[in-house]
Amino acid sequence: MDPESHLYERVAAHVAGLIERGVLRPGDRVPSVRRLSVQQGVSVATVIQAYLHLEGGGLIEVRPQSGHYVRRRPAVVLPEPRAPRTSTTATRVSVAGLVAKVYGASRDPHIVPFGAAYPSPELLPTERLNATLARVARASGAVGVSYDPPPGCPALRRQIARRSIEQGCALTADDLVTTVGAMEALNLCLRVVAQAGDTVAIESPCYFGVLQMMESLRIKALEIPCLPGAGMDLDALEEALATHRVRACLMLPTISNPLGSAMTDAAKQRLVEMLARREIPLIEDDIYGDLYFGPDRPRPAKAFDRDGLVMLCSSFTKTLAPGYRVGWAAPGRFREQVEQLKFAQSVATPTLPQLAVAEFIENGGHEHHLRGLRRKLAAQVAQVSAAIADHFPPGTRVSRPAGGFVLWVELPPGTNALELHARALAQGISIAPGPIFSAKPRFANCIRMSCGYPWSDLLAHGVRTLGRLAREVADAA
Amino acid sequence: MDPESHLYERVAAHVAGLIERGVLRPGDRVPSVRRLSVQQGVSVATVIQAYLHLEGGGLIEVRPQSGHYVRRRPAVVLPEPRAPRTSTTATRVSVAGLVAKVYGASRDPHIVPFGAAYPSPELLPTERLNATLARVARASGAVGVSYDPPPGCPALRRQIARRSIEQGCALTADDLVTTVGAMEALNLCLRVVAQAGDTVAIESPCYFGVLQMMESLRIKALEIPCLPGAGMDLDALEEALATHRVRACLMLPTISNPLGSAMTDAAKQRLVEMLARREIPLIEDDIYGDLYFGPDRPRPAKAFDRDGLVMLCSSFTKTLAPGYRVGWAAPGRFREQVEQLKFAQSVATPTLPQLAVAEFIENGGHEHHLRGLRRKLAAQVAQVSAAIADHFPPGTRVSRPAGGFVLWVELPPGTNALELHARALAQGISIAPGPIFSAKPRFANCIRMSCGYPWSDLLAHGVRTLGRLAREVADAA
Repeated sequence: MDPESHLYERVAAHVAGLIERGVLRPGDRVPSVRRLSVQQGVSVATVIQAYLHLEGGGLIEVRPQSGHYVRRRPAVVLPEPRAPRTSTTATRVSVAGLVAKVYGASRDPHIVPFGAAYPSPELLPTERLNATLARVARASGAVGVSYDPPPGCPALRRQIARRSIEQGCALTADDLVTTVGAMEALNLCLRVVAQAGDTVAIESPCYFGVLQMMESLRIKALEIPCLPGAGMDLDALEEALATHRVRACLMLPTISNPLGSAMTDAAKQRLVEMLARREIPLIEDDIYGDLYFGPDRPRPAKAFDRDGLVMLCSSFTKTLAPGYRVGWAAPGRFREQVEQLKFAQSVATPTLPQLAVAEFIENGGHEHHLRGLRRKLAAQVAQVSAAIADHFPPGTRVSRPAGGFVLWVELPPGTNALELHARALAQGISIAPGPIFSAKPRFANCIRMSCGYPWSDLLAHGVRTLGRLAREVADAA
Repeated sequence: MDPESHLYERVAAHVAGLIERGVLRPGDRVPSVRRLSVQQGVSVATVIQAYLHLEGGGLIEVRPQSGHYVRRRPAVVLPEPRAPRTSTTATRVSVAGLVAKVYGASRDPHIVPFGAAYPSPELLPTERLNATLARVARASGAVGVSYDPPPGCPALRRQIARRSIEQGCALTADDLVTTVGAMEALNLCLRVVAQAGDTVAIESPCYFGVLQMMESLRIKALEIPCLPGAGMDLDALEEALATHRVRACLMLPTISNPLGSAMTDAAKQRLVEMLARREIPLIEDDIYGDLYFGPDRPRPAKAFDRDGLVMLCSSFTKTLAPGYRVGWAAPGRFREQVEQLKFAQSVATPTLPQLAVAEFIENGGHEHHLRGLRRKLAAQVAQVSAAIADHFPPGTRVSRPAGGFVLWVELPPGTNALELHARALAQGISIAPGPIFSAKPRFANCIRMSCGYPWSDLLAHGVRTLGRLAREVADAA
């Protein structure tokens, strides 16, 4: 998408951001069309289009003869979901069957896409990135068809290292190993520090892909509550470490999935020090780290690592191109083992996608793209959240993510999320049901909804339908 | 490489093939320049160039006033290496450290490349393939940046299925899962059927990448002798199965690595039936299968599978583009588990390289390319083999591969291959020392030499230098 051609979306995202951050509160009057047009340096027509867009999304409303106001919602702002209890036992993971059942049926391209967490291709620099890959492929000659052995593409590692400095981690290209997406990076790091039968501490709720990975490696999960606002409950973690032999901790400190919660710098420092005292590696999944909604890029926990025990993993999957499968790990003191295991697992990462991403970061307006993407995602999350407040049954709770593009929704007690998932799928709507986010029988009345697509009538209809189905399922309970 | 611009190489490869297959024997007169020019429909100048090329490679010699003759070699034909003894115990694998030491130092692009087994980019359709990827990338739009979830690219799976029919396996697209090269395919299949602590039967000598993979999964190796002419010793395997609890068998029945040996159809059938009686899965690595030197494509063992127990794995790494990392598995009755594990290990295979390979196979003259590649590799193998006979110390044995592009060289007893590797590397020559091809202390006096590059003065000098160093190392023993 050319950013210039959708100026109104940027203006809408700006206002949605003010609402999301609480600068503008329900019932507040939003700036007049004329004032915002001057403020933002755009035409009156653009502001009108932006306000129509926000109105369609349920974020603002028109009061005739008076102006635009932030919409008062029935429940004003929904409360946040409740944290699960602390686990007292490590659990053998067995979710793959359920995940396959849930996801196997949902590959219909016409489905309303609240299920899988990926950004719509129209939010990504699709044409420019593919053109970059095409140019790189034509120019590459023998390099393009040849192996790029671990640690992987030097040009890409230099770009990642350069960006890491701006984020408070002084990584060098030599600290990095490139991988087939973040999932391979997490796999390699986990396999280096834990074996079958070992226990690893994770967040609860936890992204089901991580649970499947642990299941495939026969690693037991010790689920530590993730607090909606604050990320992993560090008191609970400290207690768990005192009573369990934990081999590693795997988590998303900056922006978690599915809760979208964020740890403060102080909490990250405490976490890193707590683990370092026990020589426990921290596998830090930073895949949503660039998608923060606040003013500044939060530092990864890796920025507080003094012992080489933090294994930072990320990718360009959520920000540039899921299909390119370009990820990386900064495995600290385990770098050499990760590099060896990478060779044994997949020999090398494909050469040309790495070169294309490296060139795009260097020349393609990467930071500009990220700024726009963050604004759009913040607006999309706010719009879906508002629609949930309007249409879901009383007693619904919803997360307030610090970034990323998923919402964690707690339905009224007794609402069967698996049943809701099945009924929604029958109506052409995909969601991710809560039970796949834990190795324990948890989150039976929760769902994750992805907000990776721009707000549209289709999505509005989807949320309304989900609300109706949720009532039906709750009533049947 | 444009096949038209190197016509002489095709003529040279034709003659080298006649020599390799014994149609022309040492001392035989080769066809006159004029006769071959008529036979092959090429100019006299092209034949002269071809003969110069073969002469440079040591395959033929000029006798003044008489013509060109197949060169008589000192030892005529070197004997084949001896098979190792049968293992009586399964071995915990620990080769990664040695492999890293051996390969870590050899990434100098100016090195004489007898070490790693990949084809020279000039033998591959490099420009056409990169141009195909460029075209596909530009045309792909949202598809190119989007996930291609397991089982992977439908267009590619259709092409693989179509080719499999010609090879005696009636696979359908639904039988296949695409992967990041054959190594990921082998990993997934092995992880589905064996766990840490289990025993898996493999060939001895065995490609070190497979050993590293088993080490990383903590799977024990039961090494069954691979016989130079015939592939795995099935009597030895049968005996081992009677005395060990073997979880799976992983091997290269069609063209093995490093020996280049080939099982007959009858042996493949016996193998498949022997394993099926015991319900033991066969993980069949067919990565060199398209690079046979004989007249016809040998059938994979999968062609004899009646029980869905053969898990066929391959890739386009050795024939099209190592750096594209496009591989696949046909896991038989384990397809669903492989697909789930693929998601948990790397989510998806990169989209665009798969689409490019699919389009190349459909439109790019793939079979024509393979025919030329096989001819060239056969000639290169013959040339390196002849040069070894000329320059290596008496008592050297060398394999006679049925395809592929590696030679297994057994040096006189007492010659330390690790020492030879170190001295060769100091001279800018890479080889793969024998000890990395076994989990046991074996093959101390063996080396693997890759013939993936066209014969040249550099290679000729490399073989001469290796011969001299081998004598020095043998003398020092």
